[in-house]
Amino acid sequence: MHSEVVAKAEQARAAAESLAAASTGVKNRALKLIAAALEAESESVIKANSEDLEQLKQKPGYSKAFYDRLLLTRERIAGMAEGLRQIATLEDPVGEVTGMWLRPNGLQIGQVRVPIGVVGIIYEARPNVTVDATGLTLKSGNAVILRGSSEAIHSNKALVEIIREQLAQADLPRAAVSLIEDTDRTAAQALMRLNGLVDLLIPRGGPSLIKTVIENSSVPVIQTGAGNCHIYVDDGADLEMAARITVNAKVQRPGVCNAAETLLVHRAAAPAFLPLVLPRLLSEGVEIRGCPRTKGYHADVVPAVAEDWETEYLDLILAVKVVESMDEAIEHINRYGTMHSEAIVTRDYARAREFLTRVDAAAVYVNASTRFTDGFEFGLGAEMGISTQKLHARGPMGLQALTSLKYVIYGSGQIREI
Amino acid sequence: MHSEVVAKAEQARAAAESLAAASTGVKNRALKLIAAALEAESESVIKANSEDLEQLKQKPGYSKAFYDRLLLTRERIAGMAEGLRQIATLEDPVGEVTGMWLRPNGLQIGQVRVPIGVVGIIYEARPNVTVDATGLTLKSGNAVILRGSSEAIHSNKALVEIIREQLAQADLPRAAVSLIEDTDRTAAQALMRLNGLVDLLIPRGGPSLIKTVIENSSVPVIQTGAGNCHIYVDDGADLEMAARITVNAKVQRPGVCNAAETLLVHRAAAPAFLPLVLPRLLSEGVEIRGCPRTKGYHADVVPAVAEDWETEYLDLILAVKVVESMDEAIEHINRYGTMHSEAIVTRDYARAREFLTRVDAAAVYVNASTRFTDGFEFGLGAEMGISTQKLHARGPMGLQALTSLKYVIYGSGQIREI
Repeated sequence: MHSEVVAKAEQARAAAESLAAASTGVKNRALKLIAAALEAESESVIKANSEDLEQLKQKPGYSKAFYDRLLLTRERIAGMAEGLRQIATLEDPVGEVTGMWLRPNGLQIGQVRVPIGVVGIIYEARPNVTVDATGLTLKSGNAVILRGSSEAIHSNKALVEIIREQLAQADLPRAAVSLIEDTDRTAAQALMRLNGLVDLLIPRGGPSLIKTVIENSSVPVIQTGAGNCHIYVDDGADLEMAARITVNAKVQRPGVCNAAETLLVHRAAAPAFLPLVLPRLLSEGVEIRGCPRTKGYHADVVPAVAEDWETEYLDLILAVKVVESMDEAIEHINRYGTMHSEAIVTRDYARAREFLTRVDAAAVYVNASTRFTDGFEFGLGAEMGISTQKLHARGPMGLQALTSLKYVIYGSGQIREI
Repeated sequence: MHSEVVAKAEQARAAAESLAAASTGVKNRALKLIAAALEAESESVIKANSEDLEQLKQKPGYSKAFYDRLLLTRERIAGMAEGLRQIATLEDPVGEVTGMWLRPNGLQIGQVRVPIGVVGIIYEARPNVTVDATGLTLKSGNAVILRGSSEAIHSNKALVEIIREQLAQADLPRAAVSLIEDTDRTAAQALMRLNGLVDLLIPRGGPSLIKTVIENSSVPVIQTGAGNCHIYVDDGADLEMAARITVNAKVQRPGVCNAAETLLVHRAAAPAFLPLVLPRLLSEGVEIRGCPRTKGYHADVVPAVAEDWETEYLDLILAVKVVESMDEAIEHINRYGTMHSEAIVTRDYARAREFLTRVDAAAVYVNASTRFTDGFEFGLGAEMGISTQKLHARGPMGLQALTSLKYVIYGSGQIREI
């Protein structure tokens, strides 16, 4: 086994017991101390970050977007600190009794919300994840093991050093937050096999990272991320509303998982709707990849090929298909969608209900943009990614998604007879 | 890929959509039809079962216990049918709205309970699992793919044939329940990698089966089973109660996962308690494997070795250790336990609360036998195994554990501004 990973996981396991018992006040104090220290020591973080940036510049063909994700500034560090202060204001999920009942034999049985224990995060070159994940796991009483990428290693080390120093100031174990410093893939692989020491792994990053973790981990994983989201415009929909929602879902922030990638239009709505929406999308710089019928409505439509229906562009590109019926739309979505966010625009009561029932996704909308799928917009106050699997947590994961339930049973000497 | 497994998973996926939309009445009718058909056709099931039994007898060294688990009788088939009728009386979890709230922008956001989708069950030579799993997955609106062992293949085929015939009678898709007939390990391995077609795998069986599924599955798994459960007798406990609970937890049904495997006794309680409990346990035929101090209380105590603390005997054997304090007991439990069921016997209010808080297990008891950890005793009405992991479901899994939550969002044209 990988000695650094195992040693840190064992320390995290031991720290998890203290964290589970830590009061809300102690955890909030730690969050505020970390926030203050990040701001006070932002120069040292920026210095470490500049080493990562220098290293990146040596690599041929790095992208501007990658550089921007890696970059830390005084403002960005202040933003991370502000995020921690906001988490401190959220309700502590630990200790909530979700139910309690009395059995005929006098046993009183209840369920209490408890931390998961030790959570591992495997992520790419976004140093803000280091701080966000620390805030959410700390508030929910979990120990966290961070495994960032080699490109951000200096930034992550500097951040985690500040965090651990403040944990100690707050009388919490430093091992509540640890960073795997070995950025070789063998370290990540070791983390994925530590059943018994690690309770949960959350990969945060692109599809290939997520796929690797799902395929190699024996520790339970929550799958996050990919969003091939659809807007379906129904026969009889308010077409002005439909156009506004479509443009918003595609254009407002195309690089995120809750942006729309495919527009499905009912055959009867197409003749009025496509001439309305296509010019607006094109004028916003969106490339339209359409089915043959869509092509008939605008000369600038590029013909769609089979793989367009399954592509998450994360860019100003939209696939458009005219469908015969809502049935065809739902079948298309359930076949090609990634169970993230799906929307219908309709005036019809029965079809709205049917769409909500039959579409199999984390978040299903009537008459609203898919862009609302996130923890802040849903009112969860914070977010640890958006789960696209059905187990444990589905959709935006707030603090509650980082907890489990324990049965507690109060008896008075009961034994089992049969 | 394995063609039988893939084909059946694709059919199950398609069937899952019909099942998710099926009314409670239709599902209950199917359960009752299957129950009646099992009873009416019990002779054909018994005939198929006798082929499995004959085949087993050809194998050298088969155990009586194994033969008994495989055996189907008219009474056992009637018991399985009765189980289905009981499941029909339980509340349908699908469609429950667990919460709904209004956001400042007017979006109304709710969470609705929905089926998981396609559930795979990998199990050993217990034909009753074929029927139990069918009942629970059907009632919760899921399609199920059953993968039993080669020893029970004739019994399972006969049972599933009857089940599918009655599904069709109830206007539900036959593919709601399917049996993988290839009992080679390659079929099970294929099932474990079908992300996208299979939403959840539940292994039911011994530790090596469960370990294999956890280590090889990329599909999400719920870990069930192993129970290395403890009784801790505190300083000042009601010793008569403690003895009664200890004997019950060990002796009443030693072969099940919620039976106790280790007794921990506070140093101050040992001089009065061990002379009381050891003779009773020994007279029930229990072998005592004790620490050196325990040995001092009875000549028949066998010395415990290190591995006794981590062994789930599932037999009339009990490890016994005298501890210095409750702290030592909790540390022992959190180190060697399998997070299943743990009990303290105490009269002390503060220590009862501390034990409930600090012990990390699915079910933690004060003054009651660990034997109560099951779905029926907890009032869930049925059970799909006992989860010993922290994700999704912990402890006995009833119908609710076979569901997920979907966000539904009712809008009136909202788009996202920032």
